[in-house]
Amino acid sequence: MGTAGKVIKCKAAVLWGVNQPFSIEEIEVAPPKAKEVRVKILATGICRTDDHIIKGSMVSKFPVIVGHEAVGVVESVGEGVTTVRPGDKVIPLFLPQCRECNACLNPEGNLCIRSDLTGRGVLADGTTRFTCKGKPVQHFMNTSTFTEYTVLDESSVAKVDGAAPPEKACLIGCGFSTGYGAAVKTAKVTPGSTCVVFGLGGVGLSVIMGCKAAGASRIIGIDINKDKFQKALAVGATECISPKDSTKPISEVLSDMTGNTIQYTFEVIGRLETMVDALSSCHMNYGTSVVVGAPPSAKMLTYDPMLLFTGRTWKGCVFGGWKSRDDVPKLVTEFLEKKFDLDQLITHTLPFNNINEGFELLYSGKSIRTVLTF
Amino acid sequence: MGTAGKVIKCKAAVLWGVNQPFSIEEIEVAPPKAKEVRVKILATGICRTDDHIIKGSMVSKFPVIVGHEAVGVVESVGEGVTTVRPGDKVIPLFLPQCRECNACLNPEGNLCIRSDLTGRGVLADGTTRFTCKGKPVQHFMNTSTFTEYTVLDESSVAKVDGAAPPEKACLIGCGFSTGYGAAVKTAKVTPGSTCVVFGLGGVGLSVIMGCKAAGASRIIGIDINKDKFQKALAVGATECISPKDSTKPISEVLSDMTGNTIQYTFEVIGRLETMVDALSSCHMNYGTSVVVGAPPSAKMLTYDPMLLFTGRTWKGCVFGGWKSRDDVPKLVTEFLEKKFDLDQLITHTLPFNNINEGFELLYSGKSIRTVLTF
Repeated sequence: MGTAGKVIKCKAAVLWGVNQPFSIEEIEVAPPKAKEVRVKILATGICRTDDHIIKGSMVSKFPVIVGHEAVGVVESVGEGVTTVRPGDKVIPLFLPQCRECNACLNPEGNLCIRSDLTGRGVLADGTTRFTCKGKPVQHFMNTSTFTEYTVLDESSVAKVDGAAPPEKACLIGCGFSTGYGAAVKTAKVTPGSTCVVFGLGGVGLSVIMGCKAAGASRIIGIDINKDKFQKALAVGATECISPKDSTKPISEVLSDMTGNTIQYTFEVIGRLETMVDALSSCHMNYGTSVVVGAPPSAKMLTYDPMLLFTGRTWKGCVFGGWKSRDDVPKLVTEFLEKKFDLDQLITHTLPFNNINEGFELLYSGKSIRTVLTF
Repeated sequence: MGTAGKVIKCKAAVLWGVNQPFSIEEIEVAPPKAKEVRVKILATGICRTDDHIIKGSMVSKFPVIVGHEAVGVVESVGEGVTTVRPGDKVIPLFLPQCRECNACLNPEGNLCIRSDLTGRGVLADGTTRFTCKGKPVQHFMNTSTFTEYTVLDESSVAKVDGAAPPEKACLIGCGFSTGYGAAVKTAKVTPGSTCVVFGLGGVGLSVIMGCKAAGASRIIGIDINKDKFQKALAVGATECISPKDSTKPISEVLSDMTGNTIQYTFEVIGRLETMVDALSSCHMNYGTSVVVGAPPSAKMLTYDPMLLFTGRTWKGCVFGGWKSRDDVPKLVTEFLEKKFDLDQLITHTLPFNNINEGFELLYSGKSIRTVLTF
């Protein structure tokens, strides 16, 4: 292609500091170095994790280009790239899969050593490919998708079916897969089981979709905001309740409702109290509870260890437990085969220039997922 | 047999109150009622759980006959008993398997609703079969094996191979199976994996035997008492360390030793701090930690939930996760096939009359398992 090997000037949404709005700027995107891939972004979702950088609750240097849930097309590749080529439709992976590290080599592992969850803000060689107004601009979690073009390490790129609609399939890059995987991959929900999902945001809805796909016969959605019940029922919940409707502890309410047969519970909020509620609510002996919501940083959790001793299983997962490069293409295929429906999660689609409006929708609670198109 | 249907007078070790020694008394054992089995005990092990009744840390009424790890032979059966008959060699089950309740019907469940873990002290019909000096004597955890004869609900009896040597196979009734099952059944240790066992008492040694049987390639034993290392190495540990030998946290010491590849850890002490150490010591993403040691009652555990969020699995188990009536006979068969060696766990064998001496050995730390023979 005509741009290969050259610096590309394009539009990006740059964050210049904490608590500042996105500024649409012209940036320069350097060509990919060895084992890197330059990608033209076609659509990108707005996720709560991006907001953590704006609010300063996740560490980052500035200026930075955030965004991590997207579909794009490969513009050019650096030396030695073997798994994608120009023109391929791809999903950037905030959780890389290098296929060489300790976690990648373990059958159950997926937290690749090349993950940037600590705000390193550069590619594998330690440098950035972005410049704006003469200043280097940081990358974000190996992705940076709020830009027309980005550069990714090859280990952070999954080639997907060219038929995938970008404005929907982008959700497979983060929110959808995190929730869906928590059910089908991490908890390994069994057919006929009873599941409970605490928190009915976009990831919680995706957990429900996973429970349904796995054949759960009863899926109870829980939220203090009853406005969320309709959507939860639409994606597969068999009933929804609010903990505020009873003076009893939610674990007792659920035990009464189900005859004490809850096999799987999911905490998709990120509150310590709800994590203990979710653990208590699954069966004392054969129940499994999965922590999907990120716990508040540097906060300790206190609970009665007898809850675990009697046989419960308590586990966490990152990106639903998926091995990203292996599994994201399969999830896209399943989406194209209509095994799940992403439309239910996408409430708003906006042009990229309206990114600040998209974040306002996030803050107002009016959106589940807003997708930005280019 | 001549005694069927009649009251049997025999010898038993009765506890008359908290912190009192066992008193060898003549007791009367009533015939089994419907769905009950009267068993002549051949050998019984001394377990720390029995001592919890003596010390009052587990609730019980008195007088009571404790003991729960034994091999016996069926003397007679009550009406409607179909799974054993007089002359069968059996192991009493402190964890029953009724095969009808919620937990029994779940493929992963084993905490049968008929378990008596709360000091009910009677058989399923709500009454006792023991009398001493005209007073009713309580049962203990559906077993009561410190007596020449006991009566059990059919759901608490496993028929085992008649070739099983009672003075060894009795350990399959509790201590051995609890540890061995934690490794092979609950954690499902995989071949080639690295395992760490915190606490090298009898159950900890059984965990090591389970890790070895499952094909673990590296098994690290941990104890502050180095006298225990020799036995741990004899049963399968590949190395042993004391946390006191380093100023670093034990999780760091272990990560350095193993290149951060620990897949399974086991807490077999029952200390809250060690439970968190064990969780921290397994791999942050694909590690599994099993709580085998009973936590102190009514104590809360505090930990950093990020330990779980990154992907770890934390779980508990009762009786190693085995379904007792299904699995105990299989374990006896495996023992007879020499898949594991119980001799390593048995340090003392005493005549039943010397039961108080057996408990002194427990308190002194000189014994791993003491077996009493009749």
